[in-house]
Amino acid sequence: MNLTVYLAGQIHDNWREEVKKMAEEKNLPLTFVSPQTNHERSDHIGEDVLGKQPGSQYKDDAASSINNFRTQVLLQKSDVVIALFGEKYKQWNTAMDASTAITMNKPTILVRPSSLIHPLKELSNKANVTVETIDQALEVLAYIYE
Amino acid sequence: MNLTVYLAGQIHDNWREEVKKMAEEKNLPLTFVSPQTNHERSDHIGEDVLGKQPGSQYKDDAASSINNFRTQVLLQKSDVVIALFGEKYKQWNTAMDASTAITMNKPTILVRPSSLIHPLKELSNKANVTVETIDQALEVLAYIYE
Amino acid sequence: MNLTVYLAGQIHDNWREEVKKMAEEKNLPLTFVSPQTNHERSDHIGEDVLGKQPGSQYKDDAASSINNFRTQVLLQKSDVVIALFGEKYKQWNTAMDASTAITMNKPTILVRPSSLIHPLKELSNKANVTVETIDQALEVLAYIYE
Amino acid sequence: MNLTVYLAGQIHDNWREEVKKMAEEKNLPLTFVSPQTNHERSDHIGEDVLGKQPGSQYKDDAASSINNFRTQVLLQKSDVVIALFGEKYKQWNTAMDASTAITMNKPTILVRPSSLIHPLKELSNKANVTVETIDQALEVLAYIYE
Amino acid sequence: MNLTVYLAGQIHDNWREEVKKMAEEKNLPLTFVSPQTNHERSDHIGEDVLGKQPGSQYKDDAASSINNFRTQVLLQKSDVVIALFGEKYKQWNTAMDASTAITMNKPTILVRPSSLIHPLKELSNKANVTVETIDQALEVLAYIYE
Amino acid sequence: MNLTVYLAGQIHDNWREEVKKMAEEKNLPLTFVSPQTNHERSDHIGEDVLGKQPGSQYKDDAASSINNFRTQVLLQKSDVVIALFGEKYKQWNTAMDASTAITMNKPTILVRPSSLIHPLKELSNKANVTVETIDQALEVLAYIYE
Amino acid sequence: MNLTVYLAGQIHDNWREEVKKMAEEKNLPLTFVSPQTNHERSDHIGEDVLGKQPGSQYKDDAASSINNFRTQVLLQKSDVVIALFGEKYKQWNTAMDASTAITMNKPTILVRPSSLIHPLKELSNKANVTVETIDQALEVLAYIYE
Amino acid sequence: MNLTVYLAGQIHDNWREEVKKMAEEKNLPLTFVSPQTNHERSDHIGEDVLGKQPGSQYKDDAASSINNFRTQVLLQKSDVVIALFGEKYKQWNTAMDASTAITMNKPTILVRPSSLIHPLKELSNKANVTVETIDQALEVLAYIYE
Repeated sequence: MNLTVYLAGQIHDNWREEVKKMAEEKNLPLTFVSPQTNHERSDHIGEDVLGKQPGSQYKDDAASSINNFRTQVLLQKSDVVIALFGEKYKQWNTAMDASTAITMNKPTILVRPSSLIHPLKELSNKANVTVETIDQALEVLAYIYE
Repeated sequence: MNLTVYLAGQIHDNWREEVKKMAEEKNLPLTFVSPQTNHERSDHIGEDVLGKQPGSQYKDDAASSINNFRTQVLLQKSDVVIALFGEKYKQWNTAMDASTAITMNKPTILVRPSSLIHPLKELSNKANVTVETIDQALEVLAYIYE
Repeated sequence: MNLTVYLAGQIHDNWREEVKKMAEEKNLPLTFVSPQTNHERSDHIGEDVLGKQPGSQYKDDAASSINNFRTQVLLQKSDVVIALFGEKYKQWNTAMDASTAITMNKPTILVRPSSLIHPLKELSNKANVTVETIDQALEVLAYIYE
Repeated sequence: MNLTVYLAGQIHDNWREEVKKMAEEKNLPLTFVSPQTNHERSDHIGEDVLGKQPGSQYKDDAASSINNFRTQVLLQKSDVVIALFGEKYKQWNTAMDASTAITMNKPTILVRPSSLIHPLKELSNKANVTVETIDQALEVLAYIYE
Repeated sequence: MNLTVYLAGQIHDNWREEVKKMAEEKNLPLTFVSPQTNHERSDHIGEDVLGKQPGSQYKDDAASSINNFRTQVLLQKSDVVIALFGEKYKQWNTAMDASTAITMNKPTILVRPSSLIHPLKELSNKANVTVETIDQALEVLAYIYE
Repeated sequence: MNLTVYLAGQIHDNWREEVKKMAEEKNLPLTFVSPQTNHERSDHIGEDVLGKQPGSQYKDDAASSINNFRTQVLLQKSDVVIALFGEKYKQWNTAMDASTAITMNKPTILVRPSSLIHPLKELSNKANVTVETIDQALEVLAYIYE
Repeated sequence: MNLTVYLAGQIHDNWREEVKKMAEEKNLPLTFVSPQTNHERSDHIGEDVLGKQPGSQYKDDAASSINNFRTQVLLQKSDVVIALFGEKYKQWNTAMDASTAITMNKPTILVRPSSLIHPLKELSNKANVTVETIDQALEVLAYIYE
Repeated sequence: MNLTVYLAGQIHDNWREEVKKMAEEKNLPLTFVSPQTNHERSDHIGEDVLGKQPGSQYKDDAASSINNFRTQVLLQKSDVVIALFGEKYKQWNTAMDASTAITMNKPTILVRPSSLIHPLKELSNKANVTVETIDQALEVLAYIYE
């Protein structure tokens, strides 16, 4: 049984590549999708498509409409969501994607360091499973196939 | 036509009281509901009900289960959601409540200072309306009754 | 049994007042809601709330976000929708509101002159009932109470 | 990941062929579906199947029932919708298909010339993304695969 | 707790009045709604509203669109459905209303004489409860309030 | 694009085989599913699986539970429904399956002889398309692929 | 804000009366509904309405159809569910009602003694809140109104 | 037509292997999925992934979150559910999975010995089909393909 997994979370390091490598090592039949992980491209996609906007707020809104379009397409195609929080950045998109997934009844795994237990306690309680590392998240995915 | 409005957002100042006062001044037939706004009580409700837990993670999970229960009851009863972001705190609950509301097709107004335009751009794009002050949010609510 | 009726359609004459008067004459227990019918206000509401925008496209988008918010609140509260088309104007909002209502399973009456039979044939076929005058629409509403 | 794209809009020129050609040039794994693009056939399908009807209104209703059947089948199978508006024709079917898609949570791209910004402002605000050319629409689709 | 009950079924005798009388005798806080029970009016409502149609098929379709509109409004407002079958007439509307209600998750009571057990066996199996008389149906409704 | 078509209706002649043959002749990529068409087997399946029941009502209920199970599985897998009515039999199962399909938003074609226009008028009005012969129904299916 | 609370669980003692008394003492604006709590009546309701059945399995099925009808009506009307498990009885109805409520997105409180932690661990994890006493359940309800 | 079947129920013997063998013997194109059937692993999966927990309640909650995640993924992918009850164990998970499936409109077969007719009567009445042996359940599945 093939499953599609949406990887929500920050796009400042290559954690998604690690997830994919681990899944391959475990021979899990998973397809991974994600938001745009090129940060520059993600911020500029609105102007890249629509041309110069009259200020940063309008540039941001143009970019976000295309980013949200992409996320909606891929999230609807996904069977499972992994949402990773780290210690840096505001990460409101991660919270948004995780909440959206949970409300759509997508089974969702939250990954967060122990330092974030308190501020993420309500979201963690709504997610199906909360773990601290992506290794643990992969163990949970592997468990589906045992 | 009476409407129930859920006020999501931080619980460190009395912005909800201001919202209610403005609504009264405009004679809008609105009922406001919200998360627990007593921060201490919100953090301790799990142990208040269930007794001492074996560590802060378990205390947090106990509290969040009851806070989430409250939010789910009140959000389902609401016709409209206002979600306010400020410059302090992580505010992942606010992002969670706003996303949940939007995914449930609850008409949602986002209130955020201009300093947060960039990190909130995707959530702002998904909300129905984004404004910068609670006065503006009330004007939007009042517009329903014009 | 009280019913709430959303009156979608152009805002250039007072057809909604006629509908209300007819309903009163028939003693029908109906509450009518509608989009903003003050055309000026509808076009300027974005800048009225958010201040000057950097061009007409941005002014329009600001206005439409608040108009859509209003419509979503009122449409969700409605039991029945009447959508009136006339011979003037593009009336894409009317088509949008009627389609939205039909997709939400709101029972919907389409009112259109015989001159518009052909261009509205698919929307007419999806609506529950199509009539040519608001008198006929009221007769259909009155029929619920016979 | 293959996606199916419904192309809503006027059927008076071959814009859909251009869309398909661009998608092939970009090697996007997309399947395109659409309403009946043969205008004559679309208008006569009711009588083609059911025989002569007693007047143009009945001919139109017979045709629209089969056109709507086709659209419902194909829209339900689609992952994404592109709705194109031009400067000619009433295009209420385009507005109807776009609104239906948005209400069904289908990610939707609106294509319209800048001359139509004002009359389409509410529909544009509800769509995920609004662009001015089909090239831009294809760029948005391609962005899903980056 | 007040409940609204839709009474689906034939409109050739006054069984609905009996149901109402029984409910009053039992002091049950029930509101009853139903299709148009004046058979003449039900058959002619299309031409009554829209004027003369070009043949009986078109007259029938005009009438049915208004009857279906009425049923959809009232069924959506109902908490419970009673569907009564008798030995005469085709009663496809009753089967249609009962199936629609069951698919909408409306709790449904089927009333049918024992002579119809076999042809109604699949519908009976899908209904919540099947009884043979309206007295029994009322006993089931009364049981809610015990 | 392959589509699965549920063929609801009487099981006393081989009309489904004709439908399949026509679809093959037109090279339509359709898979057809249907209720159990062996009438004897359909009536006895309850006792075939569960053993002798204490009377015909219980035998019928046992059979119908398994027939309904089959129909629910296959209807959920279907993209389109064709429901055929003839002049004989009560055909309440056909009305039930057609109504269920319509309420589930399955695009539905009704096939009925002109003699049944009046008693089927409400169901016909709710179906997407109504035709008189299975040839016409196939033409409608073929139209999807033009 | 009035809320309706469904009290699922065993019907062998008067725990529901205690719940109601506590709610009154706390002045909570709650309406409580429940399954039939007269065990005899619950077991015999099928034969009470439909007459003698041909064996205990058929008697049970007749009773359960009416009990399920009642539960479906009342659960759909409820805003919150409390499901109480005790140490005696199989209590599969309690598990069924709790699971149904959770799947319907009804906010749900599970009450169970600590001796049942292990066998109820999966249901407890799906419920919003799990407590050990009805006093604690009432505290959770009261928290909504703080 | 391939179907995926979720096998809910106790994990203390190899009944699922028997089901699979029977399906192979009948050449049914079925894929079977299930909860974790290694009882030890199922109880310890929480600590296996997350490490030592501070007591058995927390160990149980950690395990159940991962078991529920697995079940949600597999149940959403399933077309049909078989839920088997035996005479031993509390089996609240079986009741939970069966109720969840029924509420999600998954066609569901209940298998239970005649000794459990009375305590399972309400759940049995809600399931599509109730049988006493897995042979009978397979006969019901095979009936889909006749």
